[in-house]
Amino acid sequence: MTASLDCDSMLTMQDALARLTAYWTDQGCLVVQPMNTEVGAGTLNPATFLRVLGPEPWRVVYVEPSVRPDDSRYGENPNRLQTHTQLQVILKPDPGNPQELYLGSLAALGIDVAAHDVRFVEDNWASPALGAWGLGWEVWLDGLEITQFTYFQQAGGLNLDPPSVEITYGIERIIMALQGVTHFKDIAYARGVSYGEVFGQAEYEMSRYYLDDADVATNRKLLELYAAEAQRLIDEGLPVPAHTYVLKCSHAFNVLDSRGAVSTADRAAEFARMRRLAGDVARLWMARRDELGHPLGLVSPLPPAAAFEAASAGDAPRMLVFEVGTEEMPPSEARAARTQVQRELTERLGGTRLAHGDVRVHATPRRLIAVVTEVAAREPDHVRTVKGPKTGAPAKAVEGFARSQGVAVESLETAEVNGVQHLVVRRHEAGRAAPAVLADVLAKVAGSLRSAKNMRWNDPQLAFTRPIRWLVALWGDEVVPLAVSALLAGRETRVLRTAAQPAISVTSAETFMETLAVNGIVADAEDRRELIVTGAQDLVWDTGRIDVAGESALIDQITYLVEQPTPLLGTFDERYLELPAAVLTTVMRKHQRYLPVRDADGTLLPMFVTVANGPVDVERVRTGNEAVLRARYEDAAFFYRADRQTPLAEMRDKLQRLTFTDKLGSMADRAARIAELAGSLAPQPSATLERAAQLVKFDLGSQLVTEMTSLAGVMARDYALNAGETPAVAQAVYEAELPRSAGDDLPASVPGALLSLADRLDLVAGLAATVGLPTGSSDPFAVRRAVLGLLAVHRAHPELTGIDLTAALAAAGALQPVEVPAAVLADAGDFLAKRLEQVLVEEGHPVDRVRAVLPHAARPSFADLLLAQLGRLIADPQFLALAEAIQRARRIVPDGTPAQYDPAVLKEPAEVTLHETVQAVRRELSADADLSRFTTVAGPLTAPVNAFFDDVFVMADDPALRSARLGLLATVRDLGAGLLDWPQLRL
Amino acid sequence: MTASLDCDSMLTMQDALARLTAYWTDQGCLVVQPMNTEVGAGTLNPATFLRVLGPEPWRVVYVEPSVRPDDSRYGENPNRLQTHTQLQVILKPDPGNPQELYLGSLAALGIDVAAHDVRFVEDNWASPALGAWGLGWEVWLDGLEITQFTYFQQAGGLNLDPPSVEITYGIERIIMALQGVTHFKDIAYARGVSYGEVFGQAEYEMSRYYLDDADVATNRKLLELYAAEAQRLIDEGLPVPAHTYVLKCSHAFNVLDSRGAVSTADRAAEFARMRRLAGDVARLWMARRDELGHPLGLVSPLPPAAAFEAASAGDAPRMLVFEVGTEEMPPSEARAARTQVQRELTERLGGTRLAHGDVRVHATPRRLIAVVTEVAAREPDHVRTVKGPKTGAPAKAVEGFARSQGVAVESLETAEVNGVQHLVVRRHEAGRAAPAVLADVLAKVAGSLRSAKNMRWNDPQLAFTRPIRWLVALWGDEVVPLAVSALLAGRETRVLRTAAQPAISVTSAETFMETLAVNGIVADAEDRRELIVTGAQDLVWDTGRIDVAGESALIDQITYLVEQPTPLLGTFDERYLELPAAVLTTVMRKHQRYLPVRDADGTLLPMFVTVANGPVDVERVRTGNEAVLRARYEDAAFFYRADRQTPLAEMRDKLQRLTFTDKLGSMADRAARIAELAGSLAPQPSATLERAAQLVKFDLGSQLVTEMTSLAGVMARDYALNAGETPAVAQAVYEAELPRSAGDDLPASVPGALLSLADRLDLVAGLAATVGLPTGSSDPFAVRRAVLGLLAVHRAHPELTGIDLTAALAAAGALQPVEVPAAVLADAGDFLAKRLEQVLVEEGHPVDRVRAVLPHAARPSFADLLLAQLGRLIADPQFLALAEAIQRARRIVPDGTPAQYDPAVLKEPAEVTLHETVQAVRRELSADADLSRFTTVAGPLTAPVNAFFDDVFVMADDPALRSARLGLLATVRDLGAGLLDWPQLRL
Repeated sequence: MTASLDCDSMLTMQDALARLTAYWTDQGCLVVQPMNTEVGAGTLNPATFLRVLGPEPWRVVYVEPSVRPDDSRYGENPNRLQTHTQLQVILKPDPGNPQELYLGSLAALGIDVAAHDVRFVEDNWASPALGAWGLGWEVWLDGLEITQFTYFQQAGGLNLDPPSVEITYGIERIIMALQGVTHFKDIAYARGVSYGEVFGQAEYEMSRYYLDDADVATNRKLLELYAAEAQRLIDEGLPVPAHTYVLKCSHAFNVLDSRGAVSTADRAAEFARMRRLAGDVARLWMARRDELGHPLGLVSPLPPAAAFEAASAGDAPRMLVFEVGTEEMPPSEARAARTQVQRELTERLGGTRLAHGDVRVHATPRRLIAVVTEVAAREPDHVRTVKGPKTGAPAKAVEGFARSQGVAVESLETAEVNGVQHLVVRRHEAGRAAPAVLADVLAKVAGSLRSAKNMRWNDPQLAFTRPIRWLVALWGDEVVPLAVSALLAGRETRVLRTAAQPAISVTSAETFMETLAVNGIVADAEDRRELIVTGAQDLVWDTGRIDVAGESALIDQITYLVEQPTPLLGTFDERYLELPAAVLTTVMRKHQRYLPVRDADGTLLPMFVTVANGPVDVERVRTGNEAVLRARYEDAAFFYRADRQTPLAEMRDKLQRLTFTDKLGSMADRAARIAELAGSLAPQPSATLERAAQLVKFDLGSQLVTEMTSLAGVMARDYALNAGETPAVAQAVYEAELPRSAGDDLPASVPGALLSLADRLDLVAGLAATVGLPTGSSDPFAVRRAVLGLLAVHRAHPELTGIDLTAALAAAGALQPVEVPAAVLADAGDFLAKRLEQVLVEEGHPVDRVRAVLPHAARPSFADLLLAQLGRLIADPQFLALAEAIQRARRIVPDGTPAQYDPAVLKEPAEVTLHETVQAVRRELSADADLSRFTTVAGPLTAPVNAFFDDVFVMADDPALRSARLGLLATVRDLGAGLLDWPQLRL
Repeated sequence: MTASLDCDSMLTMQDALARLTAYWTDQGCLVVQPMNTEVGAGTLNPATFLRVLGPEPWRVVYVEPSVRPDDSRYGENPNRLQTHTQLQVILKPDPGNPQELYLGSLAALGIDVAAHDVRFVEDNWASPALGAWGLGWEVWLDGLEITQFTYFQQAGGLNLDPPSVEITYGIERIIMALQGVTHFKDIAYARGVSYGEVFGQAEYEMSRYYLDDADVATNRKLLELYAAEAQRLIDEGLPVPAHTYVLKCSHAFNVLDSRGAVSTADRAAEFARMRRLAGDVARLWMARRDELGHPLGLVSPLPPAAAFEAASAGDAPRMLVFEVGTEEMPPSEARAARTQVQRELTERLGGTRLAHGDVRVHATPRRLIAVVTEVAAREPDHVRTVKGPKTGAPAKAVEGFARSQGVAVESLETAEVNGVQHLVVRRHEAGRAAPAVLADVLAKVAGSLRSAKNMRWNDPQLAFTRPIRWLVALWGDEVVPLAVSALLAGRETRVLRTAAQPAISVTSAETFMETLAVNGIVADAEDRRELIVTGAQDLVWDTGRIDVAGESALIDQITYLVEQPTPLLGTFDERYLELPAAVLTTVMRKHQRYLPVRDADGTLLPMFVTVANGPVDVERVRTGNEAVLRARYEDAAFFYRADRQTPLAEMRDKLQRLTFTDKLGSMADRAARIAELAGSLAPQPSATLERAAQLVKFDLGSQLVTEMTSLAGVMARDYALNAGETPAVAQAVYEAELPRSAGDDLPASVPGALLSLADRLDLVAGLAATVGLPTGSSDPFAVRRAVLGLLAVHRAHPELTGIDLTAALAAAGALQPVEVPAAVLADAGDFLAKRLEQVLVEEGHPVDRVRAVLPHAARPSFADLLLAQLGRLIADPQFLALAEAIQRARRIVPDGTPAQYDPAVLKEPAEVTLHETVQAVRRELSADADLSRFTTVAGPLTAPVNAFFDDVFVMADDPALRSARLGLLATVRDLGAGLLDWPQLRL
């Protein structure tokens, strides 16, 4: 069990704390003490929460025993403690190389960072109760999350300027990995003393307190007293004691929560109160520091980089390489940035007169590289024409123009401008050299880089998904004289941080990609993907295979997690195969980014492929990852066994403790609404539906789904079958959760479909009324996905085509604990129609036909039917003739003309015939007719309509007659009005 | 300001914490974190409070920011903080050399312990609220208290077995000294950052909270909620969370206290509740650890030392040296132990047959040395006679005796025992060799060592004032084979801890004292005293002198604080001479053990003599001590200035916040009682008394007296004069506190005397009823001293001789808030009489006379008068004749005979004459007559009494006559009965 131990003698936990503290002290950090009131994380200590505010510099390191009542497990769970030990580091301002400093701290612990697989995996942190957020990573050591690394952007609702770097080590986890132990109690805390021996009793007793014995009434009173005292101290202008009381509030709330005593309404109210108090404290602190004149001084912002003079360029076209070096970008952001650079650079180069070849952009987690071939040495020279007065203008005007241009009147020329002769000045302008042009272009490209969520670091102006740390800009051998904010471009690129020489000077643009390649960086994403796929397949060739198509999304993600893919094969104990496959693959994919390995039938094998970054010590990294997976599977197995021994009703009861949203009640409330709504949507009663509705979402109360939310539904089916429910009921509770994402399976059974629809209707109606419908990219509750699910399920079930989603939304609205106004329902209906339009168009249907069927957006499966019929009928001359006839009628009838007329007034045979035909069609046409039926029934109208137009003058002088004729045509117009939006149709 | 800095570069505070932590980690200590709820001291952290309980070993070091709301000063006071930093070390069991380990930790801080004066100065610690106490020292570094060093004996009311060593460093003070800064804000906390910059704002704001802004009602509710939760958790059997809530109670109480919101009744109740809760927690913890099977194992007690075989002794008498080596004993205990060893050794040697010369015993702080000259090599051989039956006893008895003695009947001899001839056996016993005899004797002497307050350490059996660490026992060249519990005597003694060679082997008893002397140890107290006195006088010879007589008690104390006295002269700034002399000398004597220096007139000079231990670096130690004195004087000056700007009434109002005792109310209550009582005792009204009574004890509410209680009265006089009170009033409030100790000045003025009497009467009456009168050495409230004061003041004021202290005690009792039963008052009167008897006897009055006047113990000045008269009259034949005559009458009259008779029955001339003389004397004798007057008036009785006895037969047959004659004599007997206890008088 000590396989991953790096040092000769065992590093004890207290030694590790001392070493990290000493290391950060050497980096100029103050050492302070843990907070002397209970806190849930080191972030809450005033040495972080208050000190990250404002303009004063601050570097600190401290240990923080972090109390999380909800994590109480009586000391029985090997990885979870009510008090775990954080070591917290704050660097303010960002020193520019915090990741490198961090890696140095791992080395100080004796970890050989070159041998291990250390990765920075996207993780964005937010604490709504503190009005705080930041962007950063979880740091993985051989697959194990050991540190939270965050660029702190906002606290107490205030923007942090400068931002701070926050590094939070999870000490127990690190030590368990280093010591190779599998239970926290077995950690060697000090020489000869285990963690369990020192803290075991406290862990048990405090768990007892938090889970069983804390007095609810007492803690409620404490919460109120603390909050009142915090408010009073804010009013007195004392942020430091006020902050202490906010922390006490937070802890009391956590105690109540772990005792299951927080209602949904309480939670919302408490979070709001804490957010408000924390914000007040933060503002007050800022004001006090201002008054005190900022005792610790002010951070000096980095000075802007000074661009140097361009060297004299040669004459031949050369290649351009532009590299933007970053800290690890999230995969989706790296991909988006690649597209952005491609577009921006192409456009901006197009805006110059510099000749150039192809623009190609590559992205890795740590860099964006634009390569442009054949960039000319200079722009061509150029004549610019400045327009003056028209030829023959008064002498005064001509003289004025010449003077303003600094030329003699005699040197003015003439030219035609928009067909009129003008006096002009022609200026000969020399083309600029490539370096100067490129410097302008690249500065704009770099300066305009933006991501979906941007952050600040030590740069005074830039903002991006993660910090930009270096720029390389080479045109041939020359460095482009590029300065962007505080960054100055050069010829030095960076390779793997663990390389012997992590920074490398590049001779020329032409050798750039080769230099990277030689140093192991695979710059091209397709190359990396290929290395991952073939590498993984090679590893498992003898025994199994990777489902490359099925794992495509995961492989895409991995492609942007590594710069030098190093696939490794790991195994796990076969006994874990008894767990549901979804559990195994969820852990592998979502938590660990491992590729599952299957046999020829697609059955999971007890192995996985992980892709390390760079030339690691394969054995060591494999062992580490295997240990992480084992721990996770052990956890999952523990929960799975426990859940299967728990009655379904008991799990369902736990939904009362889960909040859906503050205003929309608990998950139990939501499940009850879904059940009721599904019943009301059902075309006929169903015992399966009734039972499934009673159970719907019960597995959210299971331990396994609490841990792995994405298994909701899957576990419901498993546990329901295990508990003796019928397969149909089990399938329905599973299908209620479908589809979980675009392209996911859809409910196959009617009960499943009804529950799925009810689920999504409830979500959309409730959130539309409380949070609002999604706009732009902000959609925290995934309402867009719910709407897409609604459409997909409805379309998959033509037997439910009678369900009108607009009416169903209204029904869902009526069940909400809040009022859902009609206007909101109308907006939701529009939103749904818009999504359907998008979906149908994306599926390849002509836009005009899609728009024509859109009136049936509330019944998307009916819209599908109409579209299908349209597809056939559009080639049918009879339909076309009918459609044309109806259009003729529509074109002549003024808007608003009612489809009413007095047949007695009609005299002409053609109009009488039309009248009779119309009435006959009307009689035969049922309300639920589809387009085929309509065409058949209404087909006979074509000839009378055309005859009418041939023989009858509609706009008769006699008003009564005219009115009757228009009314007759309006009736023709409206015959198919409910079926299609005919005017949309292009025939 | 950096004069006392030892290391090349500045040691920052955080470096110091890291170094101490590392040092103690190297000694096997665990490192834990500070408590995550507010605590007033490191002792409260469960790593101390719980872990010192029970039999498990424990070594720990941790930092504890200690919160003391009452020490809040808004960050303005240079030395006082609401949160100061303790570094706490627990060693369990006592490792046997904790002082040496501690000195090692100072060296780890870069302190040259040999150059500095490091001393262990008696300090006993007790926390009634925690049911905890221990014995130990404050550690002084050049006069500055830097550490509390305690052998922890009891916690939660439970005896600690084994005891723990608790070392508590006051970090800010140490760092201020090392860095040579005079305000905590100027401490270099980390490189380039001051303490004030980091913590200044929090210090100010938390002070604001604790002193001004904490909501009293809120904190009261918190206190109740915490206490209830603690109790619930105790009931649930969860000591760890229960302890946390006890700590929260304690902090809430401290907050209320600093807000002035704790009444006397509250305080008593809260202390009782906390003591109870802490005791319950401690018992529960012990029980839980038992149940858990003591996860950290059990401490192995030291094995008993095995005595070795004695070497063969020579024949010549040799010297015996017996050294008991200890850790620093309190001076009084060292002196007492010296006496005890002298007595015990003398007695026990006397119980052997070993011939020996003088027994002489020396004591220093660290050793007791007994030297016995000419101890014979062996006991003489000896014949022991075993007594058998009387000569001529039956043969059976004789045979039985012989058999029981294992001898033949024929070998029985005869001897006279108590004048009767017995059969005997004579046994010849060889005398034991000296080493064996001495081993027995010395083991008993060492094992029976006891002090007034004893402690335990790592020895399984011994108990003494401080740990006994080594024994030397040499008879001539031989080691006496002495084993006492775990200690084995040897020939190795220890000299100064800072010596190059701290342990030294001694060749023989004869060279022992010389060996010590060579190594600087001055074993003889008189020698040390002489070195101190002459050394000090030499130092100041040019400018002043030491008042050796006046400072005698202090010099005696210093004599037992050092083993190698090294007097040093220090100076202080002249401007401090503006402070009252009592302030200056109190600081010097009581706080620092410095000798004041005066000019020829006795006026204080700005200098002092301190006596270091051993060959220190004089300049360094001087500088350090001067800095300490400066800080103390600066503090005092600050308080003095502030007090003199405070109205007297405002100070007096503060007495309401000072508790006298839980049952006897506040100091304000007590002052009011004193005022009322003094008024009622006054022979006539006095404006001075009235005003002084209003003010009495007001200075207890001043800042200076709060800091230095012993200045009570002195400061009252100063502040009263400053406030414009009359000199008489000022003098009276001063004199109210007199006498403060045996031999102190007594009140000179009548108002002063009345207030002084009232003060002591109130104290005695109240405490007798609530705590009880002192027994043995336990007298926590100094009732004995109060009674002695009562007697002294009464005796000093014959003009107040009319005051009957018994009646006055009853009056004081009537003013108490509790009932003072008559029996208690009677006991108090007896106690007072007993003390008067002691005092008078100690003053040299013959016991019989003292006892004769003791009926007037309630009016001691009257007893004085009678004693004086007795002293004169005892040589007066007329008085002697009178006394003899009265005694004759007393001897013949049976007890209980009333002084009544029928004069008509008397017939004989002698009896008639006596009757007439008696009646004449009776008429002339007034009730308040003293002895002189009595002698004069009653003198004429002598002749008639003698004549009566010559002529009259008292025991006449006629009962009436006999009765009358006895009645007449009883009347004679009783004439002076109220004046003296005549039977006590030996003439």
